[in-house]
Amino acid sequence: MTSDIARLVEVDRERSLLAHIGAVLGWDQETYMPPAAIEERAEQLALLEGLAHERATAPEIGEILARLGSTTENPMGRSDLEPTERAYLRVMRREYDRETKLPADLVTEMARAVSRSQAAWAEARERNDFASFAPHLDRMVELNRRMAACLEPAKKPYDVLLDLFEPGSDEASIAAVFSSLRADLVKLLDRIRGCPQVDDAALHRKCPAERQAEISSWLMDILAFDRSRGRLDIAAHPFTESLGRADVRITTRYLEDFLPSSIFSTIHETGHALYEMGIDPDPAFASTRLAEASSMAIHESQSRMWENLVGRSIGFWKGKYGRLTELSGGSLDGLGLEDFHRAINRVEPSFIRTEADEVTYGLHVILRFELEAELISGRLAVKDLPAAWNAKMRELLGIVPPTDRQGCLQDIHWSMGSFGYFPSYSLGNLYASQLWASMSSQIGDLPGHIEAGNHGVVLNWLRSNVHASGAVYLPGELIKRATGEALESRHFVAYLKRKYAEIYRF
Amino acid sequence: MTSDIARLVEVDRERSLLAHIGAVLGWDQETYMPPAAIEERAEQLALLEGLAHERATAPEIGEILARLGSTTENPMGRSDLEPTERAYLRVMRREYDRETKLPADLVTEMARAVSRSQAAWAEARERNDFASFAPHLDRMVELNRRMAACLEPAKKPYDVLLDLFEPGSDEASIAAVFSSLRADLVKLLDRIRGCPQVDDAALHRKCPAERQAEISSWLMDILAFDRSRGRLDIAAHPFTESLGRADVRITTRYLEDFLPSSIFSTIHETGHALYEMGIDPDPAFASTRLAEASSMAIHESQSRMWENLVGRSIGFWKGKYGRLTELSGGSLDGLGLEDFHRAINRVEPSFIRTEADEVTYGLHVILRFELEAELISGRLAVKDLPAAWNAKMRELLGIVPPTDRQGCLQDIHWSMGSFGYFPSYSLGNLYASQLWASMSSQIGDLPGHIEAGNHGVVLNWLRSNVHASGAVYLPGELIKRATGEALESRHFVAYLKRKYAEIYRF
Repeated sequence: MTSDIARLVEVDRERSLLAHIGAVLGWDQETYMPPAAIEERAEQLALLEGLAHERATAPEIGEILARLGSTTENPMGRSDLEPTERAYLRVMRREYDRETKLPADLVTEMARAVSRSQAAWAEARERNDFASFAPHLDRMVELNRRMAACLEPAKKPYDVLLDLFEPGSDEASIAAVFSSLRADLVKLLDRIRGCPQVDDAALHRKCPAERQAEISSWLMDILAFDRSRGRLDIAAHPFTESLGRADVRITTRYLEDFLPSSIFSTIHETGHALYEMGIDPDPAFASTRLAEASSMAIHESQSRMWENLVGRSIGFWKGKYGRLTELSGGSLDGLGLEDFHRAINRVEPSFIRTEADEVTYGLHVILRFELEAELISGRLAVKDLPAAWNAKMRELLGIVPPTDRQGCLQDIHWSMGSFGYFPSYSLGNLYASQLWASMSSQIGDLPGHIEAGNHGVVLNWLRSNVHASGAVYLPGELIKRATGEALESRHFVAYLKRKYAEIYRF
Repeated sequence: MTSDIARLVEVDRERSLLAHIGAVLGWDQETYMPPAAIEERAEQLALLEGLAHERATAPEIGEILARLGSTTENPMGRSDLEPTERAYLRVMRREYDRETKLPADLVTEMARAVSRSQAAWAEARERNDFASFAPHLDRMVELNRRMAACLEPAKKPYDVLLDLFEPGSDEASIAAVFSSLRADLVKLLDRIRGCPQVDDAALHRKCPAERQAEISSWLMDILAFDRSRGRLDIAAHPFTESLGRADVRITTRYLEDFLPSSIFSTIHETGHALYEMGIDPDPAFASTRLAEASSMAIHESQSRMWENLVGRSIGFWKGKYGRLTELSGGSLDGLGLEDFHRAINRVEPSFIRTEADEVTYGLHVILRFELEAELISGRLAVKDLPAAWNAKMRELLGIVPPTDRQGCLQDIHWSMGSFGYFPSYSLGNLYASQLWASMSSQIGDLPGHIEAGNHGVVLNWLRSNVHASGAVYLPGELIKRATGEALESRHFVAYLKRKYAEIYRF
């Protein structure tokens, strides 16, 4: 390692330490912090953000990157460097550009506007009053356009925003994948709607929080969550957070009248945690930006693979259902394994994305992708959003939300100024199925392994093919290396068809 | 407020934010952090410490202090300033001097030596091998002497160290108070030893952790712990920590075979927390060094007052003992209120300070005070410490520890380089009794109020006379303002005599 790269690593590690310190504060805020502490906590986080920004934009970084030949056009730098070093330069160049290209006053303006917008959104949602939120959303759209113009003036603004979350992607490439996905999902949903509905009443029987906590803990052990490097806590909205390079924490929530909520939240977050815990591109780059995830969508592929492809399969429960019914303390009594499996996979068009099943979920995301692309491009005016939302809901899911609260006001993302994030959720599902297909053809009989409790074969494959490399590969490269092809929706659609033909018996 | 003071407050607040961020990390380390995270956590804390040190030693602070007339000789600054402003200058001058007078290489050397010394101490204690720890203790003594010489070369080193924990105190003033205390405690202990021993076997019956947790929670509510600004968690060694100006957390531990441990830890830490939550010298100085405790000993007076003067009084339990026996789920069955009261006040010379009763506790502290004064002055060589310790134990408590592990290796303080801290524990007891006597003469019939559950009269008096002023007054001034006299041991001794005459029926 050259002394220049060593110095880059040093500065970057201090930024990473500050980011992890911020993560401790953020985690605490969502789990244990007493309510009155919120005001100072915001000041603490703002101070840390400022310090991390200072480190991320140190002119020294720009000088080193330039010396090593890394430019915006050639982010990988000089060809005489090691591949890992070149990947590191690419990641550092990207972050340095992003952090330095945004003028400080725009960042401050954004932060202030976001805090007002989030408050307005929360109130508007509460009172089902889109009009009061509309000016804030307008501002978010405008500020995002300005941000995109600062980052890459030559590109379409929405492309710039998408690339922030899924490096290397753009609207056209995502639209291409989503358009065939959309057609397939609508067809499959139609087919399912023609079948007798699955009964999931038993899943709504009361199961006390303490029993659900035991079940969550049992599932984490089964999936080899390393408790010496992480833990489980309770939060209103489940999440995973890295508080250190050996400190990955997940959260779940216990709805006493719906046991599957905690079961699948816990498995989902464990999937995220297994990814974080498995990142190890090169010890020399520990605690740097290279030791981070490849993208949001790749992250989501890991959580969804464990949640859906593993956790919602009948094989996973075959050897475990007896223990689950025991641990649930009677709430599943009389519900057989097969009926349990059908119930946890019930499909039904509904208004709320976060409660959607595997089939309709993608349609919720496509709706948001299409609408946010139109908002950012200016083809759709904010005032027309509710009507556009409802029309698309009817078109894609055949239902229309009775209120904006159950419609365009449901998600927090746009109010926070996050445009371009939603596609990650669906891309994650597609990545998961494609990786699964590849793993399957290499290992053979995955369902058999899962049924036998050999979840380790899945984890090991993921470690080698997805986790370990961290941010060395862009998501597009990663999926090609792991599966031999670019991202496609057909693996996901084939998986859904196979699965739901069995569940709905068609 | 002048713009100079406003600027001082601004810099100081950033330091306070960093200190609170460190407190979040420290709290997490002792409560929830997974074990493997310790290595990076140390790096995170070191980074924060460095950043806080930068702010505390900013040359700008020295310039402002000089402009405002604050010097080491005249820390209060110009007489044309408001009293609160002058007090603030005194506190800032003190901290600025301390932080700038220690050369960076001594600080680093100390930090490194402490980390080695603590590890050596833990192992030496484990293996009961004082000799292996002796060189480290030697080093701690030497580094403390050097530190004292840097801070105030003209003063006796131990005086400088004492002043770090109890501003305004010195060896002579503490020795004067302790010498009469010592005589009185030894006499009282003799008297008690001549009486039939109290039976506390019932307190050792099993009481499950969940029930103890309910009891702790109940006690916190009784004592008006504000849960919107704090919380209770579990830790191996109970402590109180401020994580923000509206975020004070306490911890306790549940020994299933000794219920009083959690009861009195929780009350003790609640006492610390009530102090922290009540500090409010002036809104203009919120989140500055003026909004901190007056001293360690004043802090300890608050925890011990609630733990001992309130919590171990029979009046406190009169209206509550029924509920306590219910909550304890049978573990106190058959033990009457009076016998419970006697049992929780059992006196018995023992080896371990932290397990000592109210009478012998002071003797444990006096022993340490005398020995550390001799170590720092050089009158006692480290190699002779075990013999000196055992001789003093025999002299003061009439017992000799069979091993150094139960003797001079029991406490962590010296291994961390903390000399001058121990007296705070006993001074806290003395302050508590003196404040109590004053409160009593002003309010009248405190036991009656306590028995009636009007703990608020105590809290309100403490808020006005101790808590609110924060660090505006040095502890010596604070006690004079609150009680009309300087610190004396007679109130404490009178309290003990009255109480134990009743417990031991002499």
